[in-house]
Amino acid sequence: MKFETLIQKPTLIIDVEKTRDNIRHMVKKAHAQSVNFRPHFKTHQSVEIGKWFQQEGVQTITVSSVEMASYFAQNGWEDITIAFPLNWREIHIVQQLAQQIRLGILVESVETIHYLGGHISAPVNVWIKIDVGTHRTGIPWENTQSVREHIIAIHDYPHLILRGLLTHAGHTYKAITQDEVIRYYAESVQHITDIQQKLKTEGFSLETSVGDTPGCSLAQSLGKIDEIRPGNFVFYDLQQLKLGACAEENIATVVACPIVAKHPERGEVVIYGGAIHLSKEYIEENGHKIYGYVALNNHTNKWGKSIPGAYLSSLSQEHGIVRFEDKGYDLANIGDILYVLPIHSCLVVSALGKYLTLSGQIIETMNKRS
Amino acid sequence: MKFETLIQKPTLIIDVEKTRDNIRHMVKKAHAQSVNFRPHFKTHQSVEIGKWFQQEGVQTITVSSVEMASYFAQNGWEDITIAFPLNWREIHIVQQLAQQIRLGILVESVETIHYLGGHISAPVNVWIKIDVGTHRTGIPWENTQSVREHIIAIHDYPHLILRGLLTHAGHTYKAITQDEVIRYYAESVQHITDIQQKLKTEGFSLETSVGDTPGCSLAQSLGKIDEIRPGNFVFYDLQQLKLGACAEENIATVVACPIVAKHPERGEVVIYGGAIHLSKEYIEENGHKIYGYVALNNHTNKWGKSIPGAYLSSLSQEHGIVRFEDKGYDLANIGDILYVLPIHSCLVVSALGKYLTLSGQIIETMNKRS
Repeated sequence: MKFETLIQKPTLIIDVEKTRDNIRHMVKKAHAQSVNFRPHFKTHQSVEIGKWFQQEGVQTITVSSVEMASYFAQNGWEDITIAFPLNWREIHIVQQLAQQIRLGILVESVETIHYLGGHISAPVNVWIKIDVGTHRTGIPWENTQSVREHIIAIHDYPHLILRGLLTHAGHTYKAITQDEVIRYYAESVQHITDIQQKLKTEGFSLETSVGDTPGCSLAQSLGKIDEIRPGNFVFYDLQQLKLGACAEENIATVVACPIVAKHPERGEVVIYGGAIHLSKEYIEENGHKIYGYVALNNHTNKWGKSIPGAYLSSLSQEHGIVRFEDKGYDLANIGDILYVLPIHSCLVVSALGKYLTLSGQIIETMNKRS
Repeated sequence: MKFETLIQKPTLIIDVEKTRDNIRHMVKKAHAQSVNFRPHFKTHQSVEIGKWFQQEGVQTITVSSVEMASYFAQNGWEDITIAFPLNWREIHIVQQLAQQIRLGILVESVETIHYLGGHISAPVNVWIKIDVGTHRTGIPWENTQSVREHIIAIHDYPHLILRGLLTHAGHTYKAITQDEVIRYYAESVQHITDIQQKLKTEGFSLETSVGDTPGCSLAQSLGKIDEIRPGNFVFYDLQQLKLGACAEENIATVVACPIVAKHPERGEVVIYGGAIHLSKEYIEENGHKIYGYVALNNHTNKWGKSIPGAYLSSLSQEHGIVRFEDKGYDLANIGDILYVLPIHSCLVVSALGKYLTLSGQIIETMNKRS
C-alpha cells in the first residue's frame, strides 16, 4: 500500500527501519562501554516504540513528566526515572508509582527532599540534579557543599534511596562544531565524576547519570559514568543534523503536509502545516529563520532527500510557507505532499500525537488526539 | 471553590467574565456599523465557548480547517467559512459538509476552482482570497485580471456560488504602533473595495470580508465592508497587548504552571511549563526573547497583574525559566503556581486542549487530550 494515499492533513510519518537502526546503534554503543542505557522516552512517547527498545534488551527508561511515567508504568515498564525536578503538586501520583515500580526522582533543593520524604512512604530512588553549565536547573557543579547538604537531607528518610548524581549537558545544543559538542560532553562527565570522587573519600557512594543526544552520538568514549539518557537519537532532526550528531539519512520522522497554493512570483508554496503541527522551533542559516527542510516522495514509497535551497520560511497557526531558492518548485503541485524534516522531533511528536508508518499502520502515543 | 487547588500540572485557565466581555464588545462594534460578524473560532476551538457567541446573536463563523468545520457543524453551527485555501485531499469531507450546512470555501487558483467544481455536487459558497500585502497567500490585490479569471472559472459551475472577496491583513501583526495597525487595516479595506467597485462596473456583484484582531480592535471605523472575521480578540494575549490592541485586563486566558525549583543566584525560577504547553512563540523586548509575562494569584480567586520585570526567558520541552529582574522573586515558592500570560493564545489553546474556569469547571475543545 502506498502510504501517501492515506494522507489528508498534516501527518507524522515514521520510517520504522531507520528508527530501529538508531535504537540498535545507541544500545550497542552503551553496551560496548559497559554503561547502563536509560533512553529518554519523551521523544517518542509511545508504548509500541518502547517495545522496540525492549527487544534490544532495554529495561530502564527516562521520562520528563509524572504523567509520562504513569503511562509507561501502566504498560509494563518497571524502572523509570522522571528526569524533571519533583513537582510537589503531583506527589500523590508519585506515591502510587513508587509503590508500583522502581521509581527514580530528581531533587535539587533540600526543601524538596523534605517534602518528598515527608509525603511518601514507599521506597524511591533519589538522584541529585547537577548543573554542569547549562544553567537551566540543578545545583552548580562547583558547589560540593550543597551536594553534601542534599545527601545528608536524603539520609534523614529511610525510604529515600540515594542513587547518585544526574546531569544533562543541554548546552551541547548551543555548540557550533562537533568538537565543541564533544568537549562539552567530556567536561560534563569530568565535573560530575569529580564530585563523585571527592564525596567517595567522605564515604558517600554515588552513581553518575549523564547524556544528551549530541554528546552521546558524537563522543567516542562515553567516559567513566554509570548511565546515559539520550532521547532524541531515536529519530534525530535538523537540530541534530546541524550539530553533526547525525546524517540526513538517520532522520526517521517527517511531517507530511498537503500543498494548498503556489506563488510562482515569489517561488513559494503554501502547505497545510503550521505552528500547531510543527512547533515554532527554528534554526538560522544565512540570516534566515528555517522551520524545516522539505522533501518530495522519492517514488519508492519513502520520502526523498531534502531539496537543496528549499526551506520552510514561515509558519502561522495552520499555514506554512515553503521557499524554493533553487530547483524543485515545478515538482511541487497543489494536492501533492511535501515532507517537512522537522527542527525538533520531540516537539513535533507532542503536537501530532501519532505516527503513520511507511506501510500504512498507525502508531499511537500517550497524547491521543481526536 | 479555590480553582488553584485543582492545578497539578500546566493548565489553561479561562476568565469567563472577561471572555464574555470581549465577545460582547466586538459583537456591539460590528452591529453598530452594520457589518456581519463572522468570528474566527480557531482561537477558542470550543463548542461551549461558541454558545456564548450564540447568546449574543452570532450565527456565522469562520474556522481554519476542514476538521474544525466538521466539529462545529456536528454541534449545530450551520453557516461556516473555512478561511484556509481548499485542501484537495479533504474534498470528500468538504462534499459532506456542503450537503449539510451553508459552507464557505476559499480559492486562490483557477485549478483549485476546477477541482472543487468537478469533485463536489452540493452548493457551496466560494470566496476568492486576496492578498492585501501580507504575502502569505492569496491573489495580489493589484491583479484585477486574475480575480476576473477566477470569477469566470467559478461561473462554469452552477453549484459554486460566488460570494466575494476575502482577505486577512496579517501584516498588522508586524506593526510597531497603533497608528500603523489602523493604517494597514484601512489600506486593506481600500484595496478590497477598490477591486469590488471596479468589477461592479463590469456587472459582477461581490461581497467583502476582512478582519484581523489588531485591525478590528483598533480601527474606529470598520469601513465599507460586509463582514469581519477576527478571532484572537476573544482572549487577547501579549502579542495584542504589545500592538496596543488590548489592555492587560482584557487578557482572558493564562497558563497556570507549578514552580519546581528556584535559583536565587540568578534570580530565576523553574516552572513545569515548556514548549509543548506554551509554544515557542515569543516577543522581543530590550533585546530579550520573552515567552510570556508572569503573575501570581491575587488572593481573590483570580490571577493578579503581571509582575514588573519578571518574564519567561526560555523554554525547553517541559521546563520554563522565569527571570525576575525586579521584585517578586521572594513571593514565588516551590509548589506555588505562576500564571503565564501567553504570547499567542491560539497556539496555547491548541497545545493544552481544554480550559479550567475560575470556578473550577472544565471546558473542552475539539482537541481532547488524555
